[in-house]
Amino acid sequence: MADRTSPSRRAGAAPSRSWWGWGDAARALPDAECVALAALVPGAASTALPVPSIASLELPPVRVSAPGALAHLFSSDPADRAAHTYGKAFRDVVRALSGDLAAAPDLVAFPREERDVVDLLDWAAGAGVAVIPYGAGSSVVGGVEYRAGDHKGVLSMDLSGLDRVLETDRTGRSARIQAGALGPVLEAQLRPHGLTLRHFPQSFEFSTLGGWLATRAGGHYATLHTHIDDLTAALRVVTPAGVSESLRLPGSGAGPSPDRLFLGSEGTLGIITEAWMRLQDRPVHKASASVVFDRFPVAVDAVRAIAQSGLHPANCRLLDPGEAALSGVAGGGRSVLVLGVESAHHPVDDRLAELVALARDHGGTLVGESPGSGGSAVGAWRSAFLRMPYVRDGLARMSVISETFETACTWDRFPELYEAVRRDVGAVVRAATGAEALINCRFTHVYPDGPAPYFTVIAPGRRGSEAAQWDEIKAAAMRILGEHRATVTHHHAVGRDHRPGYDRQRPEPFADVLRAAKRTLDPAGILNPGVLFDAAG
Amino acid sequence: MADRTSPSRRAGAAPSRSWWGWGDAARALPDAECVALAALVPGAASTALPVPSIASLELPPVRVSAPGALAHLFSSDPADRAAHTYGKAFRDVVRALSGDLAAAPDLVAFPREERDVVDLLDWAAGAGVAVIPYGAGSSVVGGVEYRAGDHKGVLSMDLSGLDRVLETDRTGRSARIQAGALGPVLEAQLRPHGLTLRHFPQSFEFSTLGGWLATRAGGHYATLHTHIDDLTAALRVVTPAGVSESLRLPGSGAGPSPDRLFLGSEGTLGIITEAWMRLQDRPVHKASASVVFDRFPVAVDAVRAIAQSGLHPANCRLLDPGEAALSGVAGGGRSVLVLGVESAHHPVDDRLAELVALARDHGGTLVGESPGSGGSAVGAWRSAFLRMPYVRDGLARMSVISETFETACTWDRFPELYEAVRRDVGAVVRAATGAEALINCRFTHVYPDGPAPYFTVIAPGRRGSEAAQWDEIKAAAMRILGEHRATVTHHHAVGRDHRPGYDRQRPEPFADVLRAAKRTLDPAGILNPGVLFDAAG
Repeated sequence: MADRTSPSRRAGAAPSRSWWGWGDAARALPDAECVALAALVPGAASTALPVPSIASLELPPVRVSAPGALAHLFSSDPADRAAHTYGKAFRDVVRALSGDLAAAPDLVAFPREERDVVDLLDWAAGAGVAVIPYGAGSSVVGGVEYRAGDHKGVLSMDLSGLDRVLETDRTGRSARIQAGALGPVLEAQLRPHGLTLRHFPQSFEFSTLGGWLATRAGGHYATLHTHIDDLTAALRVVTPAGVSESLRLPGSGAGPSPDRLFLGSEGTLGIITEAWMRLQDRPVHKASASVVFDRFPVAVDAVRAIAQSGLHPANCRLLDPGEAALSGVAGGGRSVLVLGVESAHHPVDDRLAELVALARDHGGTLVGESPGSGGSAVGAWRSAFLRMPYVRDGLARMSVISETFETACTWDRFPELYEAVRRDVGAVVRAATGAEALINCRFTHVYPDGPAPYFTVIAPGRRGSEAAQWDEIKAAAMRILGEHRATVTHHHAVGRDHRPGYDRQRPEPFADVLRAAKRTLDPAGILNPGVLFDAAG
Repeated sequence: MADRTSPSRRAGAAPSRSWWGWGDAARALPDAECVALAALVPGAASTALPVPSIASLELPPVRVSAPGALAHLFSSDPADRAAHTYGKAFRDVVRALSGDLAAAPDLVAFPREERDVVDLLDWAAGAGVAVIPYGAGSSVVGGVEYRAGDHKGVLSMDLSGLDRVLETDRTGRSARIQAGALGPVLEAQLRPHGLTLRHFPQSFEFSTLGGWLATRAGGHYATLHTHIDDLTAALRVVTPAGVSESLRLPGSGAGPSPDRLFLGSEGTLGIITEAWMRLQDRPVHKASASVVFDRFPVAVDAVRAIAQSGLHPANCRLLDPGEAALSGVAGGGRSVLVLGVESAHHPVDDRLAELVALARDHGGTLVGESPGSGGSAVGAWRSAFLRMPYVRDGLARMSVISETFETACTWDRFPELYEAVRRDVGAVVRAATGAEALINCRFTHVYPDGPAPYFTVIAPGRRGSEAAQWDEIKAAAMRILGEHRATVTHHHAVGRDHRPGYDRQRPEPFADVLRAAKRTLDPAGILNPGVLFDAAG
C-alpha cells in the first residue's frame, strides 16, 4: 500500500513567500488598497508604512558556521534569515516592517530527510546552538522566535522539505505523512486516493502538518473532531535522546498516551517528523444554512442546544452582531449562525433540517439554505475568512492594530466573559490609543460543555508603537481570560507570547513534569527554549 | 449549583462483597451450579474448589503500624487485608481460592476526604511504605497487587469513602465527582439532575470513577466516546509532590494536556481524588437491531463500513460464530451484529434504519429490531454480559480456565490477527492442558481505523496449576498481539500482568519520560511500584 510521491523540493524559502507578512507576497494588498481600508477606521494613519527591502535590513552578524559535512543543508542568506525571524502575529508583522530583525537566526537549515534532522540536532547539541523547529512560520504566539540569550547561536530548522505522503491505507482511511507538508501539498497527494485530512485552519495554505501537531491546531470541524489531536493515530518524533515512535492504533488504553505528550509540546521536547493521520472519504453530500437571531444571548443558547444535541454539525459558527456586520452577512444588531453538514456516505438534508429546527425552536430565523456548502452568507463569510490575513497586513501597514485572541470556557462563564472582554479590553484600548476599538466575537468551535470564542480587535495604533500598544491590550486580555477561567488559547498554542497566562493556568506539578521530560529528551536544552516553560523551574 | 449529597460511608469493606471473587458474595454461584456448568466443558473437574474461610487464611505478619494521628483510617483486619490482596483476574481468583495470600498488604486505609489522602501519602513516603491505590479492586491485570520487594511495608489505600458528587453544572452538563464513587453510587447522585455519565463497563457495579480514569477504562459507547478519557474535563490529583488540578475546560490547546498524563497512569504518579466529568442527558429515544451474517469476514467488513459512516451508533458489538453460539443469540456458524442508537433529543429510528441498511448492503440479514434497547438477542446478550464474572468465578472453582484478553488493531491487520489467535493460542492451550480451547471473539468498540477485539478463552485447567497454565497462554497471547501490531490492551490497562507486552510496545523515550515524571512527583517511589514501568530504567 506504500505510495511514494515526491513533489519538487525547495532549496530555500519559496521566492513568492512574503518575508515580512502573510503568505504569498504577490497577494499582499497594494498601497492604495491599504489606504482605502484604513479610511474606514477613524483615527487611522493616512500613509502606508513602506516594506523594507531585504538589502536594507540590518541583520545581526552570524555567530556560528555550518559544519562541513552538513553545509549543503544550511543557508545564511539574509532573505532566509529575515523570513525565519518571526511568526505572523500582528506584532511580528509590524516589527518586521519597522526593520527590527535583531532576533534573526544565525542560520537556517533545510533538512531533506529525517536523517538530516538527527544530524542537525546532534551538531546543535554539541555546539550549544538553539534549534527553532519551523514548519511554515504561521505562529501567532512567538512560537518560532528566539528570545533566550544564552545559546552560542540560533538555528531555524525549516522542515518544509519533508513534505511527502509516505504510505496510505485505504482500508483504514489513514496515511503516514511527513511533518513538513503544507496543507495543500498533503491534500494534493491524498486526493488520488479519494482521501482527505479535512484539517483546514485559516493558515491552511501556509502551515504544515508538523506545526499543527506541535501546536494542537484547531481545524475544519466546529464540533467533535475539533483539534488535530483527534485525527492523530501515531507520531514519530526525533529527540536529542533518540527517536520516539508510537504504535499506530485505532485506540488504546496502554498507559498514558505517548502521542499526547508531544501534541502541543511546541518543539520543546523533540521534532515531529512523521505522523499516521486519520483521514476522511471526500464528502459528496453537503448542506448549509444561515440563521439570524435578534439577540446574541439567545443565539448563544441556541448554539448550546445544538452542541449538546449529538447532531455534530461540521460547521457551527456563530458571529456576534459586530462580526456579522463586519463580514457583511447581517446588520441591525443581529447575530448569524452558519450551520453546515457534510458526509461522504449519506444524504445530510434531514440532519440539517434537525439543526435548523433546533435553532428555530431557540428563536432563530432561517435566512438562507443551500444544498451545497455555499449560500451567499456562507460564501461571503468564507471569502472574508481566507482573505483576512492579507487584510490584517494591509491594516498593519497603516499602523492599525488588527489582531485576534481566542479561548474556550464553560457555557456558564461565557456571558460574563463576553461582557468583560468588550468592556475591559475596550477600556485598555481607549487608554492605549485614545480611540474606540471594534471588538467582535465569533465561535470557531463549540462543545457540549462550552464554546471556543474568537475575538477580533481593531483600533488605530500609534505609528512606531504598534507592537507595544498591542502588548498592553494582550496582557489585559490574558488577565481577563484567566479571571473568567477561560483557557489562554484554544488552538493558537502558547508559544512565548502566552506564557504569562499559561504559567498561571497550568498545574504546577505538570510544569515540573514538562521540565523533567525536557531534561530527559533534550538534556542540552537546545530545543525551542522559552516556549511553553522554562527549562529551569 | 453545588449539590452536596453524602451517601453512607463504609468503615471497611462492605460485608456483602466477595473477598476472593467478583462482586456481591451473595450472587456467587452455588456449588451445584458450578458443577453443572463445568459439565459443559469436556475434561473439566467434577468437584468445586472450596472457598477458604478468612479464619483459615495464613496472612503474612503485619510489618508496619499505623501512625497514631491517622490510626482511625487504618485496618489490619484479616478480612480487609485478604480482600485487598488481589484484583479480579482469573489468576487472582484461583490464587485466592488456593489460600495463597502472601502478597497481602500490611494495612488497608480508608480515607474519608482528600486531606486524609495527603496525610497518608506523607506518612507512607516518610516510612518507606508502598501505597497501592484501590478503587474497588476490579483490576484484571495485577494493578492492585504488590509485587516489588524492597518497601518497608505495603498500604492498600481504599478510596471508596470519597464517593460524592460535589457539584453539578446542568447548563454545561457536567459534574465534579469524587474518584472513589462506584458506578451505581455516582449515577444515583446524578439522576435527580436528569444527568448520566453513561460509562458502563462490565465492572460498572464494582469499579470506581478513579479506577476508570487511572486505567483509561472503556465504557458504554461502542463508537466515538469509547474511553473515559473522552468524558473527562479536568482532574484533581494528589501526588507526593503536591496537588495537581487542571482547569475545567471544554477544549484547550494550551500545551500538552495535563489530564492525559494522569489518564492511564495507574496510580504510579499520583492519586486522582476528583474529576470534572462530561455528562449526558438521560436518553429517551432508543432503538436497536440484530443483524446476522453467514460469514464472519463479511460481518467484519460491514462493521468497518458502519464505523466509517459517521453514524456513530452507541452500540455496535459484533459476535463471532463461537461467541454468538455461547451467548445463545445465533447458531449455525453465523455471526451477530448488535446495533443500538440512543438520543435524549431526537428520534433515532431513521438513524437505525441507515445503519441496518448499511449492514444489509454488506450482506447482513436483519433478525430483530426493537424501538427500545431490548430485543430478545440484545436482552440475552446483555444478561449474559452482566452475569459473566460470576460464571467465570464458578468455572474457576471447577479449575476451568476462563479468561479474556482484549486489544485493538488496524482493519488491515485484523483478519490475520484473528486467525493467529485462534490457531496459536489454541496450540498453546493444547500443549498446556491437553484439551481443545473454546476461543471466541467479539468487538467491544470500533473505530474508523480499526476494531477493538475481545477474546474469550475457555479450557479445562489442571487443579493446582490453573494460574501457571493461564500465564503460559497469556504470554503467548501477548506475543501474538505484538507480532500483529495490536495493542497489549485497549481498555484493561497494563498493570503488572501486561508489562512484557507493554515494555515492547511503548516508545522507549516515552518510558524515560514516565520515569522522570515519577522521580518528580513521587521521589520516594512509593506509588504502585512495578505497575506500567520500573522507576529505575
